Amino acid sequence: MNVQVASAEVNRFANNERANFEAALKKLVDIPSVSMDPACKKDIARCAEAAAELLRSIGAKAEVVATRGNPVVYGELASGPGRPTVAVYNHLDVQPADPALWRTPPFDMTIDNGIYRGRGSTDDKGPALAVMYAAQWASQHKLPLNIKFIWELEEEIGSPSFEQFLTENRERLKTDSIVVSDTIWIDHDRPAIPYGLRGLQGIILRLRTGAKDIHSGLAGGLARNPLGELCQLIAECYDACSGEVKIPGFYDQVRQPSEAELEDFVKSGFSVDKFVEHHELSSVRTGDDRQAAERIWARPTFEVHGIVGGYTGPGVKTIIPHEAEAKITMRLVPDQDPDRIVQAICRFVKERLPDAEIIREGTLRPYLGDFQGPFADAGRRAVLEAFGVEPAFVREGGSIGAVVSMSEVLSVPIVFLGLSLPEHGYHAINENFDWRQASGGIRMFAHYFSLLAQMRS
Amino acid sequence: MNVQVASAEVNRFANNERANFEAALKKLVDIPSVSMDPACKKDIARCAEAAAELLRSIGAKAEVVATRGNPVVYGELASGPGRPTVAVYNHLDVQPADPALWRTPPFDMTIDNGIYRGRGSTDDKGPALAVMYAAQWASQHKLPLNIKFIWELEEEIGSPSFEQFLTENRERLKTDSIVVSDTIWIDHDRPAIPYGLRGLQGIILRLRTGAKDIHSGLAGGLARNPLGELCQLIAECYDACSGEVKIPGFYDQVRQPSEAELEDFVKSGFSVDKFVEHHELSSVRTGDDRQAAERIWARPTFEVHGIVGGYTGPGVKTIIPHEAEAKITMRLVPDQDPDRIVQAICRFVKERLPDAEIIREGTLRPYLGDFQGPFADAGRRAVLEAFGVEPAFVREGGSIGAVVSMSEVLSVPIVFLGLSLPEHGYHAINENFDWRQASGGIRMFAHYFSLLAQMRS
Repeated sequence: MNVQVASAEVNRFANNERANFEAALKKLVDIPSVSMDPACKKDIARCAEAAAELLRSIGAKAEVVATRGNPVVYGELASGPGRPTVAVYNHLDVQPADPALWRTPPFDMTIDNGIYRGRGSTDDKGPALAVMYAAQWASQHKLPLNIKFIWELEEEIGSPSFEQFLTENRERLKTDSIVVSDTIWIDHDRPAIPYGLRGLQGIILRLRTGAKDIHSGLAGGLARNPLGELCQLIAECYDACSGEVKIPGFYDQVRQPSEAELEDFVKSGFSVDKFVEHHELSSVRTGDDRQAAERIWARPTFEVHGIVGGYTGPGVKTIIPHEAEAKITMRLVPDQDPDRIVQAICRFVKERLPDAEIIREGTLRPYLGDFQGPFADAGRRAVLEAFGVEPAFVREGGSIGAVVSMSEVLSVPIVFLGLSLPEHGYHAINENFDWRQASGGIRMFAHYFSLLAQMRS
Repeated sequence: MNVQVASAEVNRFANNERANFEAALKKLVDIPSVSMDPACKKDIARCAEAAAELLRSIGAKAEVVATRGNPVVYGELASGPGRPTVAVYNHLDVQPADPALWRTPPFDMTIDNGIYRGRGSTDDKGPALAVMYAAQWASQHKLPLNIKFIWELEEEIGSPSFEQFLTENRERLKTDSIVVSDTIWIDHDRPAIPYGLRGLQGIILRLRTGAKDIHSGLAGGLARNPLGELCQLIAECYDACSGEVKIPGFYDQVRQPSEAELEDFVKSGFSVDKFVEHHELSSVRTGDDRQAAERIWARPTFEVHGIVGGYTGPGVKTIIPHEAEAKITMRLVPDQDPDRIVQAICRFVKERLPDAEIIREGTLRPYLGDFQGPFADAGRRAVLEAFGVEPAFVREGGSIGAVVSMSEVLSVPIVFLGLSLPEHGYHAINENFDWRQASGGIRMFAHYFSLLAQMRS
């Protein structure tokens, strides 16, 4: 198949389907499928049914698959046995939204000159539908490709039931590769394809030195101060100014990014100045773009999220706390093993503060896919065709549990073809999506599917 | 005057007055003069009037003196001009009390076999009345001594109006010495006379690195973490395990306690084991009694009371906080100057974390009186006569603003003759006082007043 030809065709197709796309997106956005909010259980179910209905409307078989948590919408657009197969992953649950803070109602999508405003429009209902319309195009053009849809409804709460779904449906989920459309470009005029995610390991350090808070005049100097001791322990764990972790063995398994990777990080449009401005930071640990990108995408971290204990009201109250707790997570990078990291920390802490309690919190493994090879190449070509710009291959600093689960259970390459832009307000108020990215997305996935159809299964 | 004779006489006097003492104590304890509770303003006024009435009942002139805050009850039992004069300080305001936690109603004093249960019974209404009855004895026996009563009603809230009272009444408060009865023995069979107090300097350290909390996956490694940086700063300020302060100049002005003082600290009955048990501590910084006593009475401290910022709810939330605050106080000892200490800290912090904000909180100067000389000797003899045991001279680890104010405004020696015992539940539930300490207190102060009367003014 000639991709040049496909491009003009897909454009016509996308423009013809624009009204359908907008109606479908409004249908989904208007349902407040907030996975964090137990009061939205019925909306989650309603959203799943509506999504399955949409899949059926393009000719796919679709089913709402129950799990011990929220259901997963599973669809298939079968071309025929022996043909290449791709599974597409999106999620249809959304972040909460406080209408009082929004300029337009978050769960009543408005369409304003090609801009779609509403919660979930860019994360991830809009991208899901762009993929779906591209799949419809592929089906109409009888591309020799089987397309499987995996639409999750628990992504925003860390995918607690997703691995169960994958394991229980391993057979019918069989695929040659997976494409995930749930990431953000670094800059609106520079598409980016992430191929790696950082992992996460949480720990809580707790120290108890007595049964009750006591007066610092009465006991100060003799009594231990668990807040002070935890501060000291944290300062021994890492240099907070540079971010350098001082726990022996912490960096042992870190895979250094290659020169080519670092070059691409910078080419992605990442800039410290823009980052600082966008996130309203006063200052950051480095002003160098390349080093900064490496820090957030390819280096592990040690982060203190909160310290509990003592008095935190207005002014000062002169008590010595009897216990304190530090909430800590580490972002991990390939090939760091969370178990080994936890062992290293336990050893380190026990040497210094034997009576500190170490509570292991959640674990997400780091993920590293391919930025070379046939699927990465297909992604690169699809982006170039659709948006006229070569994408930069980057990594994500965050962690997506669902991706690691798919990688482990389905054992196939995963490609990230995202459509969201920084200005779309991912997780923020006034979230929006737009027709430029939606139509570009339809073109991109149509091209991508065409290229996959040419691969031998 | 022969003190031996006085002793038997005072005993008879005290036993004769026991019913009066108990009635007077019940009258005061039954009034909830809680200075922390704005709802108790009327009770404060009622308590002041009742106290003035009691002073008048023993023949003293008494007046409720208004200040910008709570009033001070001032009384005089004049013997004649040219006679030695002593001012006695007590306070009549009390800590709050939650009746639900008490075995008996906190503001309806019960008398149970010589034990007086109720809020304020030992802190400080009981001791105030013991002093008052001793003064009545002195007056009846025409001791050549002028006695002035200063009964404060803001001690439990840090004496915010007391210095104003002292300054405005400086003339009529003229005295040769002051005796304060508001301290606790270390052990019930070992009277202790404190002669020093630690001071206090509070500071708040605040660091702001952005406008809002951000996601640690997105920004971790590049963004600064103000919690981590404050932990590091605190760890640079002091070694939390040993308590040693590392700020240059911090110890420059510390006056080392003498060998004799340290000996007396241990003789006071202070023991680490009892301290640990009484305060329900898991472990402390030293097991050595002498070193422990020195730590809480004669060494300065650096204490972290609370760290604000980030996420402190259940579990872990992976945000990087945009600001953090550490609440810190230092207990200071003679001859440390709070201004110099604050300067040293500001210099130290600015060198390490130039964008940290340093907010100076309240200051209380350390106080060191005499444990030798005529007034200390009189105190020692009075205790020995009254309780049959030589007192140990110790210091207090806490800070009493009123004492420093009296020392500065009235510039005379101050002696601490306390009557409270550890088992009386100072500031705790089920506070109580007892006739053994009350009658011993009447004897002690009668002896003390006798000895003062023999000094030349």
